[in-house]
Amino acid sequence: MCFIIIISFGTCVHSLAQVLYDFTAEPGNNELTVQEGEILTLVFQSIILLLSVMVILCHMAVGSVYSFDEEWDDDSDDGKSTGGYGGSQADEGGTMQRGGAHSTMKLSLNKFPGFSKTPNPEVYLLTKHISKGDDRLPIYTGEVGPVWLYPQIQLDCVVADPKKGSKMYGLKSYIEYQITPNTTNRPVNHRYKHFDWLYERLVEKFACALPIPCLPDKQVTGRFEEEFIKMRMERLQGWMSRMCRHPVISNSDVFQLFLNYRDEKEWKLGKRKAEKDEIVGVKIFSNIDPELPEEQKYEMYSQFTRSMDNSVKELLTVGHLHWKRCTGPLQKEYRQIGKAFQNLSSVFNTSAYPREYTLTEALTATGKTYEEIINFVSQPKKDLHFLMETTHEYKGLLGCFPDTIAVHKAAIDKVKEADHLVVMNKISQQDKLIMEKNLSTMSYALQAEMNHFHSNRIYDYNRLVQFYLEEQVKFYETIAEKLKKALGQYTTM
Amino acid sequence: MCFIIIISFGTCVHSLAQVLYDFTAEPGNNELTVQEGEILTLVFQSIILLLSVMVILCHMAVGSVYSFDEEWDDDSDDGKSTGGYGGSQADEGGTMQRGGAHSTMKLSLNKFPGFSKTPNPEVYLLTKHISKGDDRLPIYTGEVGPVWLYPQIQLDCVVADPKKGSKMYGLKSYIEYQITPNTTNRPVNHRYKHFDWLYERLVEKFACALPIPCLPDKQVTGRFEEEFIKMRMERLQGWMSRMCRHPVISNSDVFQLFLNYRDEKEWKLGKRKAEKDEIVGVKIFSNIDPELPEEQKYEMYSQFTRSMDNSVKELLTVGHLHWKRCTGPLQKEYRQIGKAFQNLSSVFNTSAYPREYTLTEALTATGKTYEEIINFVSQPKKDLHFLMETTHEYKGLLGCFPDTIAVHKAAIDKVKEADHLVVMNKISQQDKLIMEKNLSTMSYALQAEMNHFHSNRIYDYNRLVQFYLEEQVKFYETIAEKLKKALGQYTTM
Repeated sequence: MCFIIIISFGTCVHSLAQVLYDFTAEPGNNELTVQEGEILTLVFQSIILLLSVMVILCHMAVGSVYSFDEEWDDDSDDGKSTGGYGGSQADEGGTMQRGGAHSTMKLSLNKFPGFSKTPNPEVYLLTKHISKGDDRLPIYTGEVGPVWLYPQIQLDCVVADPKKGSKMYGLKSYIEYQITPNTTNRPVNHRYKHFDWLYERLVEKFACALPIPCLPDKQVTGRFEEEFIKMRMERLQGWMSRMCRHPVISNSDVFQLFLNYRDEKEWKLGKRKAEKDEIVGVKIFSNIDPELPEEQKYEMYSQFTRSMDNSVKELLTVGHLHWKRCTGPLQKEYRQIGKAFQNLSSVFNTSAYPREYTLTEALTATGKTYEEIINFVSQPKKDLHFLMETTHEYKGLLGCFPDTIAVHKAAIDKVKEADHLVVMNKISQQDKLIMEKNLSTMSYALQAEMNHFHSNRIYDYNRLVQFYLEEQVKFYETIAEKLKKALGQYTTM
Repeated sequence: MCFIIIISFGTCVHSLAQVLYDFTAEPGNNELTVQEGEILTLVFQSIILLLSVMVILCHMAVGSVYSFDEEWDDDSDDGKSTGGYGGSQADEGGTMQRGGAHSTMKLSLNKFPGFSKTPNPEVYLLTKHISKGDDRLPIYTGEVGPVWLYPQIQLDCVVADPKKGSKMYGLKSYIEYQITPNTTNRPVNHRYKHFDWLYERLVEKFACALPIPCLPDKQVTGRFEEEFIKMRMERLQGWMSRMCRHPVISNSDVFQLFLNYRDEKEWKLGKRKAEKDEIVGVKIFSNIDPELPEEQKYEMYSQFTRSMDNSVKELLTVGHLHWKRCTGPLQKEYRQIGKAFQNLSSVFNTSAYPREYTLTEALTATGKTYEEIINFVSQPKKDLHFLMETTHEYKGLLGCFPDTIAVHKAAIDKVKEADHLVVMNKISQQDKLIMEKNLSTMSYALQAEMNHFHSNRIYDYNRLVQFYLEEQVKFYETIAEKLKKALGQYTTM
């Protein structure tokens, strides 16, 4: 990663840039080592309008001439790396927040104004909407209240087979993942930056109504390492599965495009169309078609998601400590116990006393058993993994709720003003009724979303904790069994 | 405990003493708070010859007048306390060493010159012995080599029922234990200081031939606390059982007196007789009646006991760490896990979503299970206890071997000089033969003792590790069972 300030600029294809910070290239990543103050010539493949002072993030090609990919390779705008549930990282969660929490670059790339300021719902509230056939987002009143319309067959996909690809005559390397949806069973390939593009479209389009969880962390160094690729794939799988499970997202044009495009042309056309989509931000509510007016429950939701956020963070912290202990001191301790028994056995063996063969053999077996157990005490790593990964996902998801709920709060405040605005002749009585109807629609959508969240949460934690306990039971049973076997070697005197 | 230097002294019943260090009395122990420099008047119940400058340890009675028990209450000559397997304590083992390692008082009370200097075996080596009937210590050549004569029924005793007693009109308190031998089934009472007296007699009489393990640590403060009394009783039991298992010790007059005296008179007479016993130190070998001459194996024994000493210390260190973890961080961790699951359940409970009763109940049960497990993770404390206590005993016993072996080494060196002494006409050829025969007897005794040690060690570690593993198996099985029960509360979706 390298921050450069462009000090000479224009609509030409060449620009001069001064390096702001030293940067040491990572071998094999087609990066270049540069030093503070150095003046570089940038060559752009297409003409880009450069703003007067713009902080850019770039990958560098060899030599002092820099090639920019037409599509930014923004798989490098984040200095963080994740390799587990690191203490502080588990608490920061910065990368799980959307747009606004990222770099400025990210924001300027977003057409959507971002959630650092709550989108103004006024533009939606004052318009009378008749939702059109295809775009309509139906909500039904189910047993638990408003619910989205769920498809008969739930979409799902498999993210697999990460492959290293390259372009620019090998100057740029990247990892491409294969995504196979259960509907077509036909794989498509995507790089991380495509996922990121999809994420941005989903935020733009849906984030006023639906919390869109962040993608797994970006990474600069070591992103071609096997361990990292495996972890990223697993987390992309988690993210995609969650998106597939959402009836509104999974049914959206942009998501369908991502999973089903047939060739490069279809992908590029679809991308352009998606980027031009105008039903974004608060306008999404105009597609919602409620059955009944609905009371406001956002305060309860706000309270619930905040509490769950805390609870989930506690679980992550505790899980992290447990993980650390199981893989560190506990292993060491069992190794020491194993060694102590084996040493005692060795000493006993030197006694030249004729009657202790059984005991020394048994002591050695005991020592070895404890050494075998070492492999099992790292078990929580395996058991906990699933619980931790999904809880981490929930942490990200819960971090999106305050923004989604803030849109509702803003709408409610606007409607509260309505009486006053009527008196002031700023809006008509008719406008006020439309506003109230529209607010009810927003509330209806929030409840549908909340019910979606609840049913997912119940499903997830039920299977998560079940799996965890199953593995834990196996773990303790295996240790008991092994020790019982060692015990069998002793004679009863 | 208070160190006082007697600066005015004599054979009178009153003495002045100057306090050397500040001392704060422990309430209820009949102690007195004194300050450095204070002059005190000591009143002795009997006339005691006071040495010119003598450091004494004393318990103080109320007021500025101090009453001395006729029999010193030397249950207070040690500043150490033991409450578990404290790191440093486990490594020091100072109190497990005999005589010499204690205070000067202890040494001056011992008639036996102590082991700080190896007793000179010359006095024994040069005398022709015919062992007398009753005192004879027979050794047989058994399957494993020389062995002591073991009794048909093994002596054992139960140390129980500690009771607080007092004398001097309540001015002095002490704890009395009841000891019941399996031979008479008639209990006798003894205070700690009586055990200490017995220990000193055994060291005097046998320590050249048999390693006499130290008594459990002495204690000054808190020695009337229940926990301490229980632990001391347990350790006295361990010590007594080990003494009972030794065929030579258990059959000795002084040990029989300790267990079987019928009244105060018999006890006092027996005590006086034991204190006057002249067959002490190296003379004990004169009672040994070997069947066959025996080769020297002391080097092998020395090597073995040193190795085992190291191994046993390692086991104690490892066990101590394990103990500490099980009772500390592990309990905390399981409590946190339990709390995290219960908190998640509480949050889920507030959702007002109708379909999660089963899940929240199951999560609560899971949390409670982990809290229940807390009581079990402290299990090693129970399991390890036995292993640690006995290993601690072995550490003490092994610490005595170097002294016992040193006596043999000294005898061997003397016999090596014999040829030279014959040439110099210092001893006769006959003397030399006597020396060689006597050395052979010593070696025979050492081997009998070593074989006794080996058979005990095999018996002890076989049952110790067996018990430990049994308890560990139960421990892991119980946890598995409990988690399985919690798992049963989840529904399969």
